[in-house]
Amino acid sequence: MNTSAATKPHDMLAQALAEEMAAVNRLIQQRMASEHAPRIPEVTAHLVEAGGKRLRPMLTLAAARLCGYDGPHHIHLAATVEFIHTATLLHDDVVDESGQRRGRPTANLLWDNKSSVLVGDYLFARSFQLMVETGSLRVLDILANAAATIAEGEVLQLTAAQNLATDESVYLQVVRGKTAALFSAATEVGGVIAGAPAAQIQALYKYGDSLGVAFQIADDLLDYQGDSMATGKNVGDDFRERKLTLPVIKAVARATPQERAFWQRTIEQGKQHDGDLQTAMALMEKHGTIKATRDDAVGWADKARMALDTLPDDPLRDMLRDLAAYVVARLN
Amino acid sequence: MNTSAATKPHDMLAQALAEEMAAVNRLIQQRMASEHAPRIPEVTAHLVEAGGKRLRPMLTLAAARLCGYDGPHHIHLAATVEFIHTATLLHDDVVDESGQRRGRPTANLLWDNKSSVLVGDYLFARSFQLMVETGSLRVLDILANAAATIAEGEVLQLTAAQNLATDESVYLQVVRGKTAALFSAATEVGGVIAGAPAAQIQALYKYGDSLGVAFQIADDLLDYQGDSMATGKNVGDDFRERKLTLPVIKAVARATPQERAFWQRTIEQGKQHDGDLQTAMALMEKHGTIKATRDDAVGWADKARMALDTLPDDPLRDMLRDLAAYVVARLN
Repeated sequence: MNTSAATKPHDMLAQALAEEMAAVNRLIQQRMASEHAPRIPEVTAHLVEAGGKRLRPMLTLAAARLCGYDGPHHIHLAATVEFIHTATLLHDDVVDESGQRRGRPTANLLWDNKSSVLVGDYLFARSFQLMVETGSLRVLDILANAAATIAEGEVLQLTAAQNLATDESVYLQVVRGKTAALFSAATEVGGVIAGAPAAQIQALYKYGDSLGVAFQIADDLLDYQGDSMATGKNVGDDFRERKLTLPVIKAVARATPQERAFWQRTIEQGKQHDGDLQTAMALMEKHGTIKATRDDAVGWADKARMALDTLPDDPLRDMLRDLAAYVVARLN
Repeated sequence: MNTSAATKPHDMLAQALAEEMAAVNRLIQQRMASEHAPRIPEVTAHLVEAGGKRLRPMLTLAAARLCGYDGPHHIHLAATVEFIHTATLLHDDVVDESGQRRGRPTANLLWDNKSSVLVGDYLFARSFQLMVETGSLRVLDILANAAATIAEGEVLQLTAAQNLATDESVYLQVVRGKTAALFSAATEVGGVIAGAPAAQIQALYKYGDSLGVAFQIADDLLDYQGDSMATGKNVGDDFRERKLTLPVIKAVARATPQERAFWQRTIEQGKQHDGDLQTAMALMEKHGTIKATRDDAVGWADKARMALDTLPDDPLRDMLRDLAAYVVARLN
């Protein structure tokens, strides 16, 4: 697969949906304003202008269009999904003490924790206002459930963190919460607002869910592979923050008693020294967990692509299919 | 007015609505559970068991009953309102570094900031699920708007804090956000779910709004008057945290140049010494701002009581009326 800049599936989607994305951006600008609290757009502009890829709103637009929608409300839903995403980033910044996001300082370094929490709450409330405007209780149901799953996944991640008992099933629950729940809601509501048949809505849900899982596994793998210029993250951040992601979980499962002691010291007790990251990466290579993790990601991406078979034959469907392939092609 | 324990209007309401409040409590217990993240009920139980007065859910139940509602959904809405309230308390704890709430340590001392943010998010999402179950888009609209106003008010409070330019109109906007928006939404949705006539819904909104403003002004005044046994707060907490509440705002407006320098040093610059709280209270007494603030609170309580004239003659209406009087009677 050709992954040069010109043919990135993400850019193809952005071109195909350019007019609608412009409308989404206008709506976002409009709704994040606040008459009484000028700090709100200051904080959000920082995130919005940093130019996330707007992947989630594009998924909603593409899903609605693919199902033949020609009304105005997919714009509201796309903005909703981006607001929820931005709110979770803001709250994540309070939580994670991560040093970088999208290559820029995180909000809570530029602003304070207080602003991050409260502005996140504001965006979350605004997102529900946008949903109400669509007049669809089913859409509200799906996105309220997604919001609960997101928060639950993040709390689960807290309790699972730094605990070597965290296994692949717990990891998958966390990933569903922190990433896949919003991806699947984004695609599902596109189908719902279009009044698509149940089988298509189910397929869109499945596409979003599998894509989200593939995306997060790939992201976690890139933490040990990527270069910080491309990902905006430093290699080994997750290790230093003692996060149990899939390649480590697999390595812990296959560890000798001596290796297990290493993981206990570095992850559970957090006593890390120079060279530990290199040792960790060597252990992952030794047990083939980098490759095994990549295989898992590819498997989820395949599921995502297959889910699309139920949907109408359309250039947008091809782009969504290519997107699933691209998410894991980054890993090669 | 007799304010002994036996006849507190709050207790009268609790008696009159005992059966429904039990149903609300069951629903709250049920919905704050989480299959995957046991930390969630641990964190919320701390707040829920601390036994807040459950004032807001009682307002919703009373409003619905007063308008003749006999369906099941006021229970959902009462639980919704309590979830939103609890979520804002959790997020407030992250924000304020306040040492006590309801006489117990705040969540973020027992737990960490992360848990407070994420569990608050979970409750907020759960509250929207409960609203969706009522099937009323109008209710969702009112509560989504209230949630946005709450967050906006809290952000405004951040920017207004420690700034002597904060005047009474900014204070009122903050109070509407942090307190009155949820009170008025709580009463309004009770009328809406009951299908009450527009004039009654408007009256319920006005009652909740005025009651909320009176309540918050009284709360801010008690910070300089109350004893910490009764209020769970220490006298002068707001002064030490450099919060510009109404009695201080009025004193700043009437300050001599020398007094203004005192406020600049203690509130704007935060350079506080022993005896400053006593000086601050003496200045408020000198300019009569304690009394003026109490008069404002009483004025809002009167507005609340008068708003009830539009509603049906009913023992519940009398209790709501007494409640408005009681909120400010605490000040005498």
